[in-house]
Amino acid sequence: MRQQHVLLGHGSGGKLMHDLIEGLFQPALLTADGASALNDAAVIEAGGARLAMTTDSFVVDPLFFPGGDIGAMAVYGTVNDLAVSGARPLFISAAFILEEGLLLEDLSRIVASMGRACARAGVSLVTGDTKVVNRGKGDKVFINTTGIGVVERAVEISADRARPGDKVLLNGSLGAHGVAVMLAREEMEFERPILSDSAPLNGLVADMLDLTLDVHCMRDLTRGGLASALNEIAGSSRVGFNIHEDRIPVQDEVKGACEILGLDPLHVANEGKLIAVVAPEQAERLLPVMRRNPYGREAVIIGEVVEERPARVVMKTRVGGSRIVDMLAGEQLPRIC
Amino acid sequence: MRQQHVLLGHGSGGKLMHDLIEGLFQPALLTADGASALNDAAVIEAGGARLAMTTDSFVVDPLFFPGGDIGAMAVYGTVNDLAVSGARPLFISAAFILEEGLLLEDLSRIVASMGRACARAGVSLVTGDTKVVNRGKGDKVFINTTGIGVVERAVEISADRARPGDKVLLNGSLGAHGVAVMLAREEMEFERPILSDSAPLNGLVADMLDLTLDVHCMRDLTRGGLASALNEIAGSSRVGFNIHEDRIPVQDEVKGACEILGLDPLHVANEGKLIAVVAPEQAERLLPVMRRNPYGREAVIIGEVVEERPARVVMKTRVGGSRIVDMLAGEQLPRIC
Repeated sequence: MRQQHVLLGHGSGGKLMHDLIEGLFQPALLTADGASALNDAAVIEAGGARLAMTTDSFVVDPLFFPGGDIGAMAVYGTVNDLAVSGARPLFISAAFILEEGLLLEDLSRIVASMGRACARAGVSLVTGDTKVVNRGKGDKVFINTTGIGVVERAVEISADRARPGDKVLLNGSLGAHGVAVMLAREEMEFERPILSDSAPLNGLVADMLDLTLDVHCMRDLTRGGLASALNEIAGSSRVGFNIHEDRIPVQDEVKGACEILGLDPLHVANEGKLIAVVAPEQAERLLPVMRRNPYGREAVIIGEVVEERPARVVMKTRVGGSRIVDMLAGEQLPRIC
Repeated sequence: MRQQHVLLGHGSGGKLMHDLIEGLFQPALLTADGASALNDAAVIEAGGARLAMTTDSFVVDPLFFPGGDIGAMAVYGTVNDLAVSGARPLFISAAFILEEGLLLEDLSRIVASMGRACARAGVSLVTGDTKVVNRGKGDKVFINTTGIGVVERAVEISADRARPGDKVLLNGSLGAHGVAVMLAREEMEFERPILSDSAPLNGLVADMLDLTLDVHCMRDLTRGGLASALNEIAGSSRVGFNIHEDRIPVQDEVKGACEILGLDPLHVANEGKLIAVVAPEQAERLLPVMRRNPYGREAVIIGEVVEERPARVVMKTRVGGSRIVDMLAGEQLPRIC
């Protein structure tokens, strides 16, 4: 927190953002019982019910990109945050900050897409808000969604529960969402367009938890990508991760685009991908269950939790070496979600 | 919905905003059971609990003004929306959209103010999010708060429940918040500064509901002010309102500033004011209860519900005439909350 001003990198899901949360937000917003106030999804008790609550603002630029748009993303992002906390998503709110001059036709398309996304994810949009800011004081449309889910199962999914020996499951190939958005922003077109993976994962998670409640950690891989998610878990659980490059699926087109754009697929944001850290005896049982779900067809075990090098993520490379996988440090990928 | 573009007036809480909600949002976001998807606060059933959920984004300009700031407003705004729906506010989320270049010191002040506001209102901030947009694509900081409360009492507070004969209670004087923000924005200073009334109303509402559950409608008077709140209730309940100018408290300084700024105090946003439409026999009993609460000291009965002129609000003026009080039509007061 030595910078005097907010930098773009403060929003990239990497180190600067973690500094901001730990240095500025947490100290001011500790709850009365001393619990940390700013987690991704909070499990709360209200009126006797065990609920999860999560919030996310979406500022993705451009608003429309191959395979998705800001409206569907805003629904799936919040649905997925609830799902990976072990909750069944039920209700979401939607709050729009519109820039004066936005085409009403674009707003209509976005809202229609949200309606379809809610239907697909099986959640109800129950309350909303609209603000308008002067031209040049916003950027077409920003959407906040906040979601409520019910935690019906006796799961305890938390970033500090990874144990040496646990396996890491990934539901499919990395990087398509972030690359699709970046290519649309740069107005670059490839022969075969890369489509965002934007999708609701609550059905997949339910399938997994139907098989076993012995899931220790689960994360959807949005800002900061796989690298940030693994580093966060490694830090919270004080364990190391060994992952294997040759097991991590990345589409050839995505790989090629990442090279052109100078991006590492492990850092690129997704909106339909998750990892689960599970007891070793459950990993092989979960794979076929995941693969039967439309959003888990390419599910793989990409690595394991180790005692050595706590808080470190190490990748065994294809050529037989190993390298440390760090959190995204800078502003490589602004406004990807 | 003839305009092709979003106008500032679409965010002012008046007619244009209602057109946008009814013409664009509602048709796309109807829930499965056909209920309207975008109300101010929704009452939902989750895990067996009866809850209220509400969302609001805050884009007030400037960030700091006499008597308040965007952080405290963001907490009280959501707390008050829950309170006037009959719920006890419990949890809120906070999502920040920061503009690159924002002073971290300003962000610290805002977050500290939110922490104090949560303590004062008795709610816990349990989850959050931070996004950063490029310089010139936002305006320093926008904050979304979404709140969850529990509906413990057998109240049924709804805009369509006003009945002829009901009385209208107001908890204090109008317009201070909006005028304080406008003066700060225009950098105008008066001899005696006008302070925003920004305050949490959940304690006041609890005091009222402790006395009687026979409260039919309740609204906090934010965007669009008293005029919009009464018109919305008049429309939903298909009743008329007679209100009396000489009973509506407005501080002299606020009156003077409104004249200079060309504003009608009935249209100006507040953040610590509410109206309650109650059975006539309860109105006189509620007054002393409200007046004992720090946020109800100036409580008054400002008028009554009538059968004549359904969907119309009529004000008996000080000089003995009467005039129709309409909803705010244009963009008189952008970015006041």
